[in-house]
Amino acid sequence: MSGPVRTGLVLVGARGSVASTVIHGLEALRSGTPPLGLVTELPDFSSTPWVDLADIHAVGWDIAGDSHRTAEDLRRTGVLPADLVELGASLRDRLELNIAPGIPEPEDAGIADSSARDRLELPSVEIIEALRGDLRSWREREGFQRMVVVNLATAERQRELPPGWDELEANPLELVVSAPADFPRSLLYGIAAVAEGLPFINFTPAMSTDVPAFSGWADRSGVPLLGNDGKTGETLMKSALAPMFRDRALRVLAWEGYNMLGNRDGAALEDPSRKSRKVANKDGVLQGILGSEETHSGVSIDFVPSLHDWKTAMDFIHFEGFLGAKMQLQFTWQGSDSALAAPLILDLARIALLASERGESGPLRAAAPFFKNPAGTDEHDLHRQMSEFRAWVRR
Amino acid sequence: MSGPVRTGLVLVGARGSVASTVIHGLEALRSGTPPLGLVTELPDFSSTPWVDLADIHAVGWDIAGDSHRTAEDLRRTGVLPADLVELGASLRDRLELNIAPGIPEPEDAGIADSSARDRLELPSVEIIEALRGDLRSWREREGFQRMVVVNLATAERQRELPPGWDELEANPLELVVSAPADFPRSLLYGIAAVAEGLPFINFTPAMSTDVPAFSGWADRSGVPLLGNDGKTGETLMKSALAPMFRDRALRVLAWEGYNMLGNRDGAALEDPSRKSRKVANKDGVLQGILGSEETHSGVSIDFVPSLHDWKTAMDFIHFEGFLGAKMQLQFTWQGSDSALAAPLILDLARIALLASERGESGPLRAAAPFFKNPAGTDEHDLHRQMSEFRAWVRR
Amino acid sequence: MSGPVRTGLVLVGARGSVASTVIHGLEALRSGTPPLGLVTELPDFSSTPWVDLADIHAVGWDIAGDSHRTAEDLRRTGVLPADLVELGASLRDRLELNIAPGIPEPEDAGIADSSARDRLELPSVEIIEALRGDLRSWREREGFQRMVVVNLATAERQRELPPGWDELEANPLELVVSAPADFPRSLLYGIAAVAEGLPFINFTPAMSTDVPAFSGWADRSGVPLLGNDGKTGETLMKSALAPMFRDRALRVLAWEGYNMLGNRDGAALEDPSRKSRKVANKDGVLQGILGSEETHSGVSIDFVPSLHDWKTAMDFIHFEGFLGAKMQLQFTWQGSDSALAAPLILDLARIALLASERGESGPLRAAAPFFKNPAGTDEHDLHRQMSEFRAWVRR
Amino acid sequence: MSGPVRTGLVLVGARGSVASTVIHGLEALRSGTPPLGLVTELPDFSSTPWVDLADIHAVGWDIAGDSHRTAEDLRRTGVLPADLVELGASLRDRLELNIAPGIPEPEDAGIADSSARDRLELPSVEIIEALRGDLRSWREREGFQRMVVVNLATAERQRELPPGWDELEANPLELVVSAPADFPRSLLYGIAAVAEGLPFINFTPAMSTDVPAFSGWADRSGVPLLGNDGKTGETLMKSALAPMFRDRALRVLAWEGYNMLGNRDGAALEDPSRKSRKVANKDGVLQGILGSEETHSGVSIDFVPSLHDWKTAMDFIHFEGFLGAKMQLQFTWQGSDSALAAPLILDLARIALLASERGESGPLRAAAPFFKNPAGTDEHDLHRQMSEFRAWVRR
Repeated sequence: MSGPVRTGLVLVGARGSVASTVIHGLEALRSGTPPLGLVTELPDFSSTPWVDLADIHAVGWDIAGDSHRTAEDLRRTGVLPADLVELGASLRDRLELNIAPGIPEPEDAGIADSSARDRLELPSVEIIEALRGDLRSWREREGFQRMVVVNLATAERQRELPPGWDELEANPLELVVSAPADFPRSLLYGIAAVAEGLPFINFTPAMSTDVPAFSGWADRSGVPLLGNDGKTGETLMKSALAPMFRDRALRVLAWEGYNMLGNRDGAALEDPSRKSRKVANKDGVLQGILGSEETHSGVSIDFVPSLHDWKTAMDFIHFEGFLGAKMQLQFTWQGSDSALAAPLILDLARIALLASERGESGPLRAAAPFFKNPAGTDEHDLHRQMSEFRAWVRR
Repeated sequence: MSGPVRTGLVLVGARGSVASTVIHGLEALRSGTPPLGLVTELPDFSSTPWVDLADIHAVGWDIAGDSHRTAEDLRRTGVLPADLVELGASLRDRLELNIAPGIPEPEDAGIADSSARDRLELPSVEIIEALRGDLRSWREREGFQRMVVVNLATAERQRELPPGWDELEANPLELVVSAPADFPRSLLYGIAAVAEGLPFINFTPAMSTDVPAFSGWADRSGVPLLGNDGKTGETLMKSALAPMFRDRALRVLAWEGYNMLGNRDGAALEDPSRKSRKVANKDGVLQGILGSEETHSGVSIDFVPSLHDWKTAMDFIHFEGFLGAKMQLQFTWQGSDSALAAPLILDLARIALLASERGESGPLRAAAPFFKNPAGTDEHDLHRQMSEFRAWVRR
Repeated sequence: MSGPVRTGLVLVGARGSVASTVIHGLEALRSGTPPLGLVTELPDFSSTPWVDLADIHAVGWDIAGDSHRTAEDLRRTGVLPADLVELGASLRDRLELNIAPGIPEPEDAGIADSSARDRLELPSVEIIEALRGDLRSWREREGFQRMVVVNLATAERQRELPPGWDELEANPLELVVSAPADFPRSLLYGIAAVAEGLPFINFTPAMSTDVPAFSGWADRSGVPLLGNDGKTGETLMKSALAPMFRDRALRVLAWEGYNMLGNRDGAALEDPSRKSRKVANKDGVLQGILGSEETHSGVSIDFVPSLHDWKTAMDFIHFEGFLGAKMQLQFTWQGSDSALAAPLILDLARIALLASERGESGPLRAAAPFFKNPAGTDEHDLHRQMSEFRAWVRR
Repeated sequence: MSGPVRTGLVLVGARGSVASTVIHGLEALRSGTPPLGLVTELPDFSSTPWVDLADIHAVGWDIAGDSHRTAEDLRRTGVLPADLVELGASLRDRLELNIAPGIPEPEDAGIADSSARDRLELPSVEIIEALRGDLRSWREREGFQRMVVVNLATAERQRELPPGWDELEANPLELVVSAPADFPRSLLYGIAAVAEGLPFINFTPAMSTDVPAFSGWADRSGVPLLGNDGKTGETLMKSALAPMFRDRALRVLAWEGYNMLGNRDGAALEDPSRKSRKVANKDGVLQGILGSEETHSGVSIDFVPSLHDWKTAMDFIHFEGFLGAKMQLQFTWQGSDSALAAPLILDLARIALLASERGESGPLRAAAPFFKNPAGTDEHDLHRQMSEFRAWVRR
C-alpha cells in the first residue's frame, strides 16, 4: 500500500491503561523513541508492508473514566514518562471527543457514565446497532480509510450462550434477535465490528473466536478474527519454557503460578466469575505443550493494590529427571502490564490489516504467538508459533 | 542395524559422578525405569534406529578414585536411589576391571594413581599410543562391535597450542611429534579416538572441535565429532529464554548469572585457568541469540561444598520494553548436575553412532541442542537447534 | 532432678510424619547425632535441668496408618536417613504396641481403623474417659514417672463451642456433659490430659488455650498449657523479618505468602474449614508485629503432592521507604516440615516439664517463640519472644 | 533544647545521590511527607529531644559534579518525585554556594574539579587545615550553632597506615606531620571534624573509628564517633535473619550473597582495592552472629549499570536441621540505595548530636543498628542492637 492511509484503531476500553499507553506510545514512536516491544518492528520484518504507525489514530468506547487521569496514574506508577504525559495532553483532548459510551457489566453500572448506563437498557440488537453507528460515525468524521477493532475491556464475567451459537452456519445478527439474552460484551463488540467488515482482535479473556456462530460468520464475511487473551507475562514465560522441559524429556510434576497485580483488571479478577476464564487460559498453555495429565498445575491471581500496573508472577516448577531425580525451577517476572500489552496492540492491528488486505478471513492462526488461547490452533509452544508467524509474514 | 550389536561407551572420567550415573542408569533403564531425561526416547524419535541401550557397556579412563565410593556419594546426596547403588555393585566391580589410567593435569598429579602419574611422564605421542592401545584392548576383550569416546573429565586448564594447529589440512599425529607441547588432555583423548576411527564427544569445556587441525583431520578420517561443553542447566535456560526476549523485541539490559556447585567440577573451577572457558561458553550463548553488545552480562561460578552435585543457578535479567519501561525476570534453577548430564551422554552416544552409520564426519552441527558451544554452528537458540536436530534425525 | 526419670511423650498423631521423625530422632540423638534444630540444646541453656532425651519414650494415639510405612515414606523423600530407618524397626514395633485409637474427624471416618471409628460413636464424655484410660494404662505399663501430651494431629475443622466455654471459671468436664456437642478433637485430648494432671502442648492449628473454660481450668488444676500451632517455616520467617521493617520505619504495603506442601497436612488443608484457622494464625503474626491495617496481606496454602514433606513458601513483600520509594523483598523457603517440627516437639516437652516442676500452670507465655499463635501473649516478634524465653529459662 | 537551634549537616560527597536525597527529603518532610524510613521518628522515640528536622541545613564537600544533575538522575530513576525535584531547585542553588572542594582519590583526579585537584597537591596537614577552614567558614556564614560531619564519599581504596596509628594515646594531628603518607580520605575528614569539636559519622566502608589513634583522640576530645559503613540492605537482612538460624539451632552451611548495583558506588567497587573492605564488612556480620567457622560465606558485588540506584541482592542460604536435613532459603532484596540511606543520615545526625549533648565521646556503641561494622561492639544481631539502642535513647 503506498501513500498515507488514514487508519482507525478502535479500542474497547479507550480510557484504560493499555489504551492510554498505546496512544502515548504512538506519539513517542512518531518522535523517534526506539520501538521496543514491537514485534512487527523486528529486523526480520523490515520489508513487510505493515501499516505505517504514523497513520494510526485511536478512537473507541469506554464506560466511564477520564483519559487524563489514566495518563496521570501511569506517570505516577512509572509506566509513562512525565514529559510524554505532558506532551500528550492535546492528544487526549482529541481522544475524549472520539469516545463513545461502552457497554458495562451489570455490576459496573454504578460506576458507569449515564450514557453507558443508558445503553445497558437497550435490547442486544439495538446495542449492536448503536455500536455500528459509532463505527460509521468515526469513519466519516475522522476520514478513516481502514479500521480495526480491539477489545481491551476489563475481564468480563462468564456467560452461557443460548442454543444456536455453537453452529458454524448460524448468523449472529439473527441469533441475537431470535433468542435474546444477556450477551457477553465481547461478542456484542465483535458482531458490530464484523457487521461493518472490520477485523476484530480480542485481547482479553472473553468469548469471541471460540463461538462457532461468530467465527463462521466472520469467515463467510471476509473478516479476520484475532484472539484470544493477550500473552504478555507469566503465560508468555510458560510458552517459552515448557517446550524446554518437553524437549529434554523432563517430567513436570507441578507448575504453580502465583500472579499479583494492582490495576483495574486486578480488581475485576477478584470476582471469581470474571477470573475463571483467565485462569483457564493461563493453565491451558501447559496442557497444550506438555500434553500430559501428570502435571499438577495451579494458577492464582491476587489483587495487590500497591503494585498498580506492575504485574508480578512467582512460579514454582517441580520436575523429575533421570532416575527420578527431583529438581526445581522458580522464577519471578515483574513487568508493567500496560507497557507489555501496548506494543502488541499495535502489532496485532498491523497483522489484522495485513491479513485483511491478503483476503484472509476468520480466525487467524498465524497470530498465535500473541495469545494465551490462540484461535484456530492448539499450538502453544511460543517458538513453533513464531516459526509459523514468520512463515506467514513472509508469504 | 538388526540384532544386538555390542557397543562400547568409552568414558574419560569413568569414575566420576556423571559416569557413575550413566552406568547405574543403564542398569535401571534395563529394569524398566522410565527413561526421563533421555531426548532420544521422546515419542518423536520412536522409529529412529538408535542403538539399543541394553547393548551399551561402559569402559574408560580415570586418574584416580573408586567407583564404589562415587556411587556411595551419589546415594548420600540423593542422586542415586539406595537400592540401585546396592544393585550396581557387581557392575562397578566389572567396570573397575575395565578402567585404564587417565592423563592428569599437572596440578592433579598429587592425587592421581601412580599408573596415571607414569603416563604424565611420557611424551605426548606415546600418551596417544597408550590411549589407542587401551581402546584396542577394550574392543578385543569386551568384543565391542562399535565404540564411541566421551570426554567427561573435570574442566581442564586453558592452554595455547603451538603453530600449525589452526590449519584444517594439518595432521595432528604429525603435529604432536613435530612441535611437542603440554597438550590439552581433551585433545590427546580426541586424537586417540579419531586415530582408531571412533566418534568423539566432548562434553566438557575443553579444546577439541574448535581446533581446526583436529576437526579437519576427523572430517577426512570419516569420524564424527560432537561438542562442546554439555548444556544441562543455566545455559540451557538461557538458550530457551533469550529467544523470547529477542522475539518480543525486548532489550535485555543485563543478564547476571550466579552459579553455585559443590562437586569435583566445582572445586576445579575455583582455578581461574580452568574456569575461563566455561564462563566464556556460558556467556557466548547470550551474544549468539541476542546478537547485541547492549547486554551487560556476567557469569560467576562459586564452589559451595554443601551443595555437592546440586548445581544452583540464580539469574537476574533486567530488560527494557515499550517506552523504556524497565522490567525484570529472576530465576533459580536447582538440579543434580549428574542426573542432568547422564541421559545426554546416552543420547549423544546414540547420535554419534547414527551419524557414523550414515557416513557423516567432522563436527556434527545437528547435535547443537546438547552443547553450550556447539560445533559447526553459531545457532544458540534451543528451539531452532531442536528443529534442526529433529530434521536431521528424520532424514 | 537427679537420676533417670522415665518420661512419657504422648503424641496425638503418633504414626504421622512428625511423630515418626521425633521417634527416630530420639534414637539418633542417643547415638550421638548432633542435636541440630533443638533449641534446648543451645549452649545458652547448657546448665538448664532439662529432662534427659534418653529418658523420653513415645506412646500415643492415631486413627489409622502404620508407623513402618510412614518411616519408609520419610526415607524416600529424604527426611530420614536410610540406615536410621533400618535401625528403628524394633523401636517402631514397640511403638505400635503403645498406640491407642484416636478420634477421627467425621470426614476421615472412612480411612480410620475400626477401633477409632468405634470411639467416634461414643458421647464426648466417654471419649474423654477412654483417653484418660489410655494415659493411665501407658503410665502403668511403661512405668512413666512423668508424662506430657502433644497434639500433632492433622489440622482439624473449625467448630463453634456451645455457650459456657467462654467462661474462665467453668469446668470442662461438666460442660461436656451439660451441653453435648461435636467437640474439637484437640479439646477432647486436652481435657483428658489436664484431667490426668499432664501438661498439654497444642502444636496444630486447633482450639485449646484460647478456650477460656479450658485454660482457666488448667490453671486451677496446676497444669501448664503450651500452644498454639507450631512456628516452623514461613511464619517463623515473618516473625524474624517483620521486626526489621518495623524498626526501620519501613511501611509494609503488601506481604503475600504462597505456601505449597504435599503431605497429609497439605491434603487436609485443601478443606477450607480446616484451612481457615491456620491461615488466620499465619496472618496474625504480621498484624501483631506491624500493628497496622495498612498492610495488604495474603496467605495461601496449596497442596502440591510431589513436594511431599518439603514445604515450600514463596513470599513477596512490597514496602515503602523514604519519600515514598517502593521497594521489595522476595523469599523462598524450603524445608522439611517434619524435620523442622520434630526437634521443637522435644524442646516443648522439656519446657512443659520444667514449667510443671516449677509449679507453673495455665498458658505458658514463655513458650511463645515456638508458636504461630502463642498462648498468653500478643507478642509475635521472634526476637522479643526469645529474650523473654531466655529470661524465663534462667529464672 | 528549646527554641530553634540552627544545625549544620556537613556532608562529604555533598553532590552525591545520598546527599541529594537527604537534602530533598528534608524539604519534603518540612512539607508534611510522612517520615518513612526515619528510625528516630518511630512512636517509641516520640518524647526524645532530637534536633528538629526543620533546623537542619546541609553544606559539604565534593570533588566534582553538579547537584542539579544528580537530582535529575534521581528523578529519572524513580527515587525522587518529579515535583520535589522541581521544588528543590533554589535549595540546590543555595547548596552549590556552600560546597567546598573535596579530596579525590588519585585515580579520580581526572574527573575532579580543578579546585579539588589543587587540594590533592597539598601535604596532608595542610589538607586538614583547609577542611577545618571550610568548617569554620560554614559555621560563621550560616550561623550554625551545632554541626555534625557525615562521610558519604564513594568507597575509598584500602591503605596501610604508618606506625603510630595503632596507639590509642597518639595524637593524629602530630602523626600526620611526623610520618606523612597518602592518608585515607575518611581519616582526613574525620580529623578535621574532631579538631573542630564536631561529631563524625562514617557511613562508608572506610577507616575511622577502627583506627586507635583516631578514636582515642576523639574520646579525649569529647567528640562522639559513629560508624562504620551504613547497614541499609543485604547486610541489614543478614543481621535480622541470621539470629533466627542461631536461635533455632539450625546450622548455616553456606550463605552466598550476590549484590548488583549501578550507581557511582557500584562503579568504584569494580576496583578490588575499594571493594575489599566493603566485602569484609558484609561478611563479618555472619561470623559475628553465627560465631562459627562452619559457614561457607561468599559476598560478591557487581556493577550492573542499568540498575542505577536500585541495589539488588540475591542471597542463597543453605542450612542443616534435625538429623542432617538440608534445607534452603533464598531472598531477593531490591531497594533504592539512596532512599534507604538518606533517612539514616538524618537519624545518625540526631543521634550524634544527642550523644554530644549528653557528654558522650569516642565510638558510640549504641549506634550499632545502623552500621555493618559497628564501632565499639561485636554485636551484629540487629534485634539485640535495637534493644541496646532503645535503652540508650531512653536513658
